[in-house]
Order: sequence, then structure tokens, then C-alpha cells
Amino acid sequence: MVEGTNMGDSDSDIRVAIIGGGAGGMSAASRIKALKPEWIVSVFEATSFVSHAPCGIPYVVEGISETSKLMYYPPSVFIEKRGIDLRMNTRVIDVSKGSLQYIENGEEKEMEWDYLVFGTGASPIIPPIEGKDLEGIFTVDLPPDAERINSASKDVSEVVIVGSGYIGLEMAEAFSARGKNVTVIEMLPHPLPNFDEDIAEVVKAEMEKKVNLRLNEKVQAFEGKDKVEKVVTDKGEYKAELVIVATGVKPNVELAEKLGVKLGETGAIWTDRKMRTSMENVYAAGDCAETYHMITGKRVWNPLAPPGNKMGYVAGVNIAGGDIEFPGVLGTQITKFHELEIAKTGFSEKEAKENGFEVKTALIKAQTRVHYYPGGRETQIKVVADKNTNRILGAQIVGYDSVLARVDTMAAAIQAGFTTKDLFFADLAYAPPFAPTWEPLVVAARVLKF
Amino acid sequence: MVEGTNMGDSDSDIRVAIIGGGAGGMSAASRIKALKPEWIVSVFEATSFVSHAPCGIPYVVEGISETSKLMYYPPSVFIEKRGIDLRMNTRVIDVSKGSLQYIENGEEKEMEWDYLVFGTGASPIIPPIEGKDLEGIFTVDLPPDAERINSASKDVSEVVIVGSGYIGLEMAEAFSARGKNVTVIEMLPHPLPNFDEDIAEVVKAEMEKKVNLRLNEKVQAFEGKDKVEKVVTDKGEYKAELVIVATGVKPNVELAEKLGVKLGETGAIWTDRKMRTSMENVYAAGDCAETYHMITGKRVWNPLAPPGNKMGYVAGVNIAGGDIEFPGVLGTQITKFHELEIAKTGFSEKEAKENGFEVKTALIKAQTRVHYYPGGRETQIKVVADKNTNRILGAQIVGYDSVLARVDTMAAAIQAGFTTKDLFFADLAYAPPFAPTWEPLVVAARVLKF
Repeated sequence: MVEGTNMGDSDSDIRVAIIGGGAGGMSAASRIKALKPEWIVSVFEATSFVSHAPCGIPYVVEGISETSKLMYYPPSVFIEKRGIDLRMNTRVIDVSKGSLQYIENGEEKEMEWDYLVFGTGASPIIPPIEGKDLEGIFTVDLPPDAERINSASKDVSEVVIVGSGYIGLEMAEAFSARGKNVTVIEMLPHPLPNFDEDIAEVVKAEMEKKVNLRLNEKVQAFEGKDKVEKVVTDKGEYKAELVIVATGVKPNVELAEKLGVKLGETGAIWTDRKMRTSMENVYAAGDCAETYHMITGKRVWNPLAPPGNKMGYVAGVNIAGGDIEFPGVLGTQITKFHELEIAKTGFSEKEAKENGFEVKTALIKAQTRVHYYPGGRETQIKVVADKNTNRILGAQIVGYDSVLARVDTMAAAIQAGFTTKDLFFADLAYAPPFAPTWEPLVVAARVLKF
Repeated sequence: MVEGTNMGDSDSDIRVAIIGGGAGGMSAASRIKALKPEWIVSVFEATSFVSHAPCGIPYVVEGISETSKLMYYPPSVFIEKRGIDLRMNTRVIDVSKGSLQYIENGEEKEMEWDYLVFGTGASPIIPPIEGKDLEGIFTVDLPPDAERINSASKDVSEVVIVGSGYIGLEMAEAFSARGKNVTVIEMLPHPLPNFDEDIAEVVKAEMEKKVNLRLNEKVQAFEGKDKVEKVVTDKGEYKAELVIVATGVKPNVELAEKLGVKLGETGAIWTDRKMRTSMENVYAAGDCAETYHMITGKRVWNPLAPPGNKMGYVAGVNIAGGDIEFPGVLGTQITKFHELEIAKTGFSEKEAKENGFEVKTALIKAQTRVHYYPGGRETQIKVVADKNTNRILGAQIVGYDSVLARVDTMAAAIQAGFTTKDLFFADLAYAPPFAPTWEPLVVAARVLKF
């Protein structure tokens, strides 16, 4: 077969190679096989997990889930039901136009491809801090990490978490729920770096009930004999028997660089809206791929599972001869810290300004039910809008109930280009057990004016 | 002052009369006073409740709320804080251009107005069934009904509810939660007349666990000596010590008819998008007013609190010299029957067809959390789309968790004119404790195709 083309004698000669069996890779593989059952679709996955669910790691550590469950589908679904040539524990070591080299069962092998998909994901960044290689220091990446962290944490009482983004927060919940003494160290003046400080205040207050939260503090060293024993910052030192470094992730682009596909300004693999890279017949999807922001159209990198799945779907459809574009992301996220639910979609005030918008904001405190129905909980909502056009640019929601409802509604509203007036007139649901008559999002719109 | 105009010597001469102190009336009054503090705004409310919350009645009957709480704000807020001339227990008996007659403290009086707002609400329909005036037969309308029903139901064990719309369902919950034997009689083959039968099946199954649900059955008579003793249908008869008739509501338009303002095709007061009636300086808002459907632009009547509040807001702004239009409604509703949450926005399949659409539908059954996080509950979602344009026309959601999230997201999506593709690419929130990676709404969009 001619390298790098799909000009084989028949469709059954067409071979797709997918590097990585996570959300992006498996969605692409599944879609291609659904549309082109006669094609050979090979997925190379370095671990013994496929369609892995790293988002579940904190909950395994918390003791409410199990590592073995951290796959959305077991390999058999992909192999037997979907007819995918899935190769687990198989690492791709090199890739060139039309072929790739991989190690399977300790043996180096080569495969030719007509289409290639990078689904290589992202990996935690470990800052170059002294002592970072000591035993007892972990990152949260792939399902096996849950097991490693769990067995290392059994008899441990002092846990230090570096970073207070989503993963830091979730790991802080996990360890504090297990009764450990948890210290969270954050360089910034508030937890959740991509939130605005005013609304992050609620998260801060909740964290302070459960953990020792150290803000404006920078880790300078991990110290210990063989195992980590303490974490030294610019302001103090903390006993540490186990450390979680959760200071961010980076896209895995080494193989893409080897092949010579272009990287984008964010450092992830450049892709267009069809998930094509700069090289013919080469696609990328999921956490390794760059995409567009729905509001600005600017290039962003947003390594999260749902867009990863959809990027894979889009790559798959296009490879199989379809024509579909991925419209980009808003960076919608949700998490919780114990009972406090925390979510965001679109831009924070700070991010909106960084993107050149003149903004106005409303910060609303509301109860989630009418006053006469028991069980209402407090929720706080910050909505950011363009001062000139009234377009909604973002929402941050922190509360004890129904945060999913409000963030998803705002995600749809922002995608649609809603103005504050459109939001005010949104016909949102009301009944005493569910929401107040004046829905807090509608109140936010009214406060923002239109 | 010249009747029916606002040409008084000064602004302080301008007088607004509002008939009805519910959602529409009080929102209009509040808005006018906020914008024109010097105007005299009089509200005539026939009961001793203002900004009343009839939606709370079932929960008072259930024993989890209290009648005295069924006002969003106490009269003092309107009178003292907002400066509204609020007249409780005052009934308007006649209205003509520029003036109205009312009875206050047993005395007939007259007031002149420059602007008039009808906020006369809606009232239950009692079908002309034999024995309908027997003692022990109630409708659910205004807060005092909660007290009347409560005191009548104390020693009662057999309750019959006629109708299985939202109010019927909520009253069925209330009485079954209190351990009464509840029979619900519905003429149609499924509960919730404005739902499609396939998804109403879930509600039916849940109701059958708690009450005696009689479908396809028509009430023919209420029988009893002085008090109701049984309900006779075309198929049987049921012992009844207390009956709730919840077969629908009608707009209160008598005074509007007296004045000569036009009624719309739905029987409610015709209004334009500024909430103006057919007569100069006369507005209507809330449950007595007709409005537009957001999808079709057709005239609809949708007596619910949140649109009522917004209609009042719009009427108020326009009366006070502003210029704002009410874009209409989707008929978004939510309720619950015990643990089962039930919601709808836009059209059912049946309604979409009645409105001339060729439709396609997807009915999705999903868990509300990823499989590896405990506590996921089943939810079922039916999405209706236009077969030709792929525009989303409606969603019905029934499940044990997060129904608010999905109905509000769909309400925003439908308002925005989302196609199935837009919905597929909606960047909705995901985290294990909140939603599956492939959000059920996104799955529905994928199933519907685009």
C-alpha cells in the first residue's frame, strides 16, 4: 500500500493507527469502525487500561470506588463488539509517514498506516523542585496511580498536596475524608487558580474547615532520607509522609514532534476544526490536541474528557469520509470539595479581561429553593458579561445544591451567544422543591442589566 | 386628570392601578415604583395574601410547609420598602376607561387611573359534574385553600384526586406521604396529559407504587349526603372522604371583558410583546395574560409563576416609559412525585406534531453518574427535534437525580434555536459525582443524528 494515502486496492486494505486508548483515541476508533466496519483500526495503548478514567482516581483514594472500575468500557467491548484491533501494554516508540514502530510483548514491531490519530493524552507536570524524586511523592495521572497512592498512604497521617486546582482539591477531599491531616499549598492568594478571587473565597472558607490551606506559599524543596519527610516552602515547613503534586499537566507531544506535525501556540498538537493536524491523513484528539475557544475563536488547550470524546468522534467521522467540525470548548468544569459543589464555564472576570473584553459582573447569593420549602441551600453565582455588547462571557458557581443545573444552563447560554437579556428571559424551570421563583441566573442577568 | 392618559400636570399626578397582587401584579408594581418612585401605584388584592405562592399548597398539605409562609414577600416589603399603595382584602368590582370601582372594608369606592394592569390570575376549572358542590370537594388555588384542605383532611383516610397534571400529582404525593389511601382518576391513558405516553410510563409506574391510579376513566358524579362519600366513574366507584379536583385552570378575564379589552384565541387576555392589551394604557401580566411561544411565535397561554413575574417586569418597565419586549415562553415545568423528578420544556412529540412539525425523537435511559462513582440514579430523557432542520423542539426528563440540570439546559438550548449538532457539541460539565462522561443530553443529540 502506498504510504500515507488511502488509495489501497479496496476499502478493506485501509489501516488506521491510533496512538493512545483514552477518551480521544477510543472515540475515534469506535466511530471509524461504526462507519467503516471493513477497515482495520489498531489502537496502541501503553498501559493495561483502556478508555481509562483518571477522573476516578481521587474517589478510589477516598475509598468510595475501585481501581479496577476505572475504565468506561472493558477491552472486550472494543475488541469483540466493535471489532477494534486493540493492543494493550503496547508502546509506540517511533512514528514516521505511513508507519510506526511499537513494542509489544517485549518485541519491537512495525505497522503501516493510511491514517494516524494521536490520542497521546497529557501528563502531570512536576516542577523542578529539589527532592522531587523522593519516595512518597506522587502525581495523579493514570488509574494505576490510584493503587500506588493507596498502598503508600495506608499508615500515613500527614499528607501535603501541592496545588489547589481541580485535582488538588479532589485529592484534598479524598485524604481529609479518610481522616488524614492534609496541608494544601498554593502559590496564589486563593484556591482554584482559574476562578476569580471573590468567588473562590467560598471554596477557601470550606477548605479551611477540613484542611490546612496555605495560600501565597511556594514550595522550595521536598526533604527526607529516602522517603519524603517534609515539604519546605518560602514561609515554613510541613511534615509530610505522602505528597501529591498537582500543579498542572502538559500535552504528550513527543511522538507528534518526531513525526514533524506542527505544535500550536499552547504547546499541544495543532489541529483544525476537523481535528486534522498539519500533516495529511494525520489527526489528533483528546488531551494532546489544541482546539478553539467557542467565545473568541482563539486557540486553546483544554484537556478534559467530554471534549476529548467529541474530538475523537469528529476525527473518526472525518477519517471515515464524513465532514464534521468541532466547534471548540468553553472549558466547562465541575467538581466538589466535600459538600461544596464548584463549577465554571466560559471566562472568569480575569480571563475575560485577559482576552480583551471590557466586562461587567454580578455576584449573586441565593437559596436553591423557595423559602417555604425545606432543604434550600446557599449558592453563589458570578456571571461575567461584555460591558459593550451584554454578551455573557462566563459563569462561576459555588454552592451546596444544583450547581450542575446552573453551570450547564450557562454553558448552553454562552455557546448560543446569549446576552444578559436573553438570560433574563430564559424560561427556566421552577417548582418549590427545585428552585426559587426568581431563578438566581435570571436575577444575575437582571443585576447585570440589559 | 384626563382619563386614560398620562398628561397630568406633573409626574406625581400619575396613578397606576393594578388588579391582583400575585406574581404579575406585584412585579409590575415593584418595577414601576423602582423606575418612577413619585408615581402612585395602587394594587388591589382580593385576599389577605400578596405575592402569594399557590405552588406551595401541596407542600403545606404534605406537612412540610406552612400556609403563613406562602407569600414571597410580606405586605410590609411592598408597602414600606417599595412604597406601593397595597390594598389587601379589596375586591375590584367594575372597571371602565380611566376609573375602577372596588370594595374596601365593606365600602364601595372609586379610583381613577392613568395606567391599568390586569394581574387577575387564573382559577381552577370545576367540570360540571353532578355533586360537584358537595362538602369535601376542593380545588387548589390560593394559599387559604391549604388551610381548608388541611382541616378537612385530618381524620380522613380515603382521598380521591381527579386529574393527574402537575397539581394532581403534587396533591397525590402530599396525601400519600401522609398515609392516606389515594385514588387518582385520569381520563387519558397516562398521567401528565402534556407528556408523551412513552416517557409518562415512568411516572405511571412510580405512581402505581404509592396510589391507586385509574387511567382511561372519566368521573361521572360525586355522591354523598351532605359531604362527598364516593366518586363514580364510567368504570367503577371509589370511596371518597375528600376530593381534590385538579382538572385544569382558566384565566380570570371577567373584569377585562367588562372593560372591553380583547381576549385572545386561548381565552386569556390578548397582549403584545410589551404586555399591552388592545386598549391604550391597559396592560396585562401573569396567569390572566396570553403570550407567545418561543419556538413558533404562536399565541399561547402558559399560567406559571416565572413567566408571570417577567411579564409583570416587562409591563412595569414599559408603563414607566421604558421599551422592552417579552419574548414568550417554552412552557418549562418541573415537579416531583416523591423521589421521581419530572420536567418538560418545549414541545412533546404530540405537541410538536400538532404544531405542524415533522419530528424525530430519541428516548435515552442513562445513569446520572459514572459507573464507578456510587449513587448514580436512573434518568430518562426524551428529546424531540424537527426532522427537516434538526432544530430541537422539546425535552421531557424523568428521573431520580439532576432533572433540573437537564431541563434548564434544554430550555436555554431551545430558546437559542439549537440544532441536534449544537446540542451534541454543547460543552456541558462532567465529573464523576455529577454526570457521566457522555452526558445523556449529548447522547440524545447523537442518537437523533445531525
